[in-house]
Amino acid sequence: MVDAGDRAVTSIDTMVDGVHFRLAGAAGGWASPADVGHRALAGALSDLAAMGALAGEAYVSLVLPEDMGEERALELMRGAEALAGRCHTTICGGDVVSGPALVVTVAVVGWASATQPLVGRDGAQPGDRLGVTGELGAAGAALALLEDQVAPETVSPATREALLERLLRPRPRLQEGQQLAAAGAHAMIDLSDGLAADAAQLARASDVRIEIDLDALPLANGVSAVAGELRRPGWWLGAGSGEDYELCVCAAPGEELAGVHWVGRVGEGEPRVLLSDHEGEQALTGYEHL
Amino acid sequence: MVDAGDRAVTSIDTMVDGVHFRLAGAAGGWASPADVGHRALAGALSDLAAMGALAGEAYVSLVLPEDMGEERALELMRGAEALAGRCHTTICGGDVVSGPALVVTVAVVGWASATQPLVGRDGAQPGDRLGVTGELGAAGAALALLEDQVAPETVSPATREALLERLLRPRPRLQEGQQLAAAGAHAMIDLSDGLAADAAQLARASDVRIEIDLDALPLANGVSAVAGELRRPGWWLGAGSGEDYELCVCAAPGEELAGVHWVGRVGEGEPRVLLSDHEGEQALTGYEHL
Repeated sequence: MVDAGDRAVTSIDTMVDGVHFRLAGAAGGWASPADVGHRALAGALSDLAAMGALAGEAYVSLVLPEDMGEERALELMRGAEALAGRCHTTICGGDVVSGPALVVTVAVVGWASATQPLVGRDGAQPGDRLGVTGELGAAGAALALLEDQVAPETVSPATREALLERLLRPRPRLQEGQQLAAAGAHAMIDLSDGLAADAAQLARASDVRIEIDLDALPLANGVSAVAGELRRPGWWLGAGSGEDYELCVCAAPGEELAGVHWVGRVGEGEPRVLLSDHEGEQALTGYEHL
Repeated sequence: MVDAGDRAVTSIDTMVDGVHFRLAGAAGGWASPADVGHRALAGALSDLAAMGALAGEAYVSLVLPEDMGEERALELMRGAEALAGRCHTTICGGDVVSGPALVVTVAVVGWASATQPLVGRDGAQPGDRLGVTGELGAAGAALALLEDQVAPETVSPATREALLERLLRPRPRLQEGQQLAAAGAHAMIDLSDGLAADAAQLARASDVRIEIDLDALPLANGVSAVAGELRRPGWWLGAGSGEDYELCVCAAPGEELAGVHWVGRVGEGEPRVLLSDHEGEQALTGYEHL
């Protein structure tokens, strides 16, 4: 039981072994139990960040396969607890059941005062600029490295480490989300499925057309090199790969929003996303998660 | 985003195909997608009922296996929606991912006013009586019928229908929970794991000893017949089988609580549950879920 704020926002997010991560221990595994706990909580908190809400409490449900012992389940929870502490979130409850594969579901409840602006996906307006926080493509590049789609020497060891950290220990942009909400953002979404797919959700919810300038994407260090090895341009990872957990924001052109990199604009027309670079319109094809 | 009450209680509950139910369609399956949706929401709401909270919003996360088409997933959600409507609960969000087996996780948020009593598991006091709402053992008896552990003719078709309804479409005791909380219940828990196991949780949380009179258990019609076929006394299902989703309540002896059947008492001593019938102390052995 917790004392409530004026308004509550709740989000639920599920990650499945073999779909959203590969648990270390089995062949080809690359996510430690602590990574899995961290990522599952981060994914749920990221939704709150995109609304500009204060993180409140988290509730974690685990489906544990037989071969995952208690110690590794506790390590998973410690990974989630460590992130919770950094995000001023309290893990208040949960459920543990057995099942055929590791499944982690996190529900998070966030709070806002009656006067605090909360941002949805449906407020983008023609004339708005479209921006993103941070850098894009790191999680997708890390995945390509971990899944041996590109050679390890494609990037330096330090760059590899930084990319892996972004995939395995993403940081939900809670502070940034609250600042953007307070600064008057019209619409926001967190980048869980990739900029192109997530912007398409904004476009549908707001009934607007969104144009993205692929040359303007702020790519993380190493992303272009990994994309090149895949015989793709850097924007292919920057706009296509998910799980960067940065924020995508739409705001009026006059707004100065600290930490936002402008990458596109909102227009009238049927709800869709137009991608173009210096060569003209581009299609995002061939992108598969995991 | 919802306007909040004064205090929030949140519960999360997960059900897995092959562990908590068997989805119809595969060999030996007995729960329709709509049943699964209903039961998963009922299990989560039942936790709120045991606190005496008002049900607020529900959030449903689905892990869908490849062979479960969209139509069956929608049928599952319709089953949950139908129960939500009857419980004045709104399904406000969710997540859908793919995975190796059907997993349904429901998070529910309930509300209470600052002056409304909420009941925990830790308030049982020596001298309290222990009671239950409704009737016990129905879900366990239904499971024995569905899993062919007893012959169909053990009970009449009408009794079988009634037992199956209790297993497949349990009704969370939300109203009863609020009434018991208002009437001064000291501690409550919902019967998801079975009276003996759930009372043991109350005993541990409240640091009390709980004595249960097995002869006093209010067994649902047909439970004794099914237990007899299993060469067990009726109380074996009544105290051992889970998922009846009735409430177990501890209250001071003077309290008149409508709809409660008294089956035991709370005493001092090391936290444990003592089961006894007219023959003396009994142990609950050999009970396996599914």
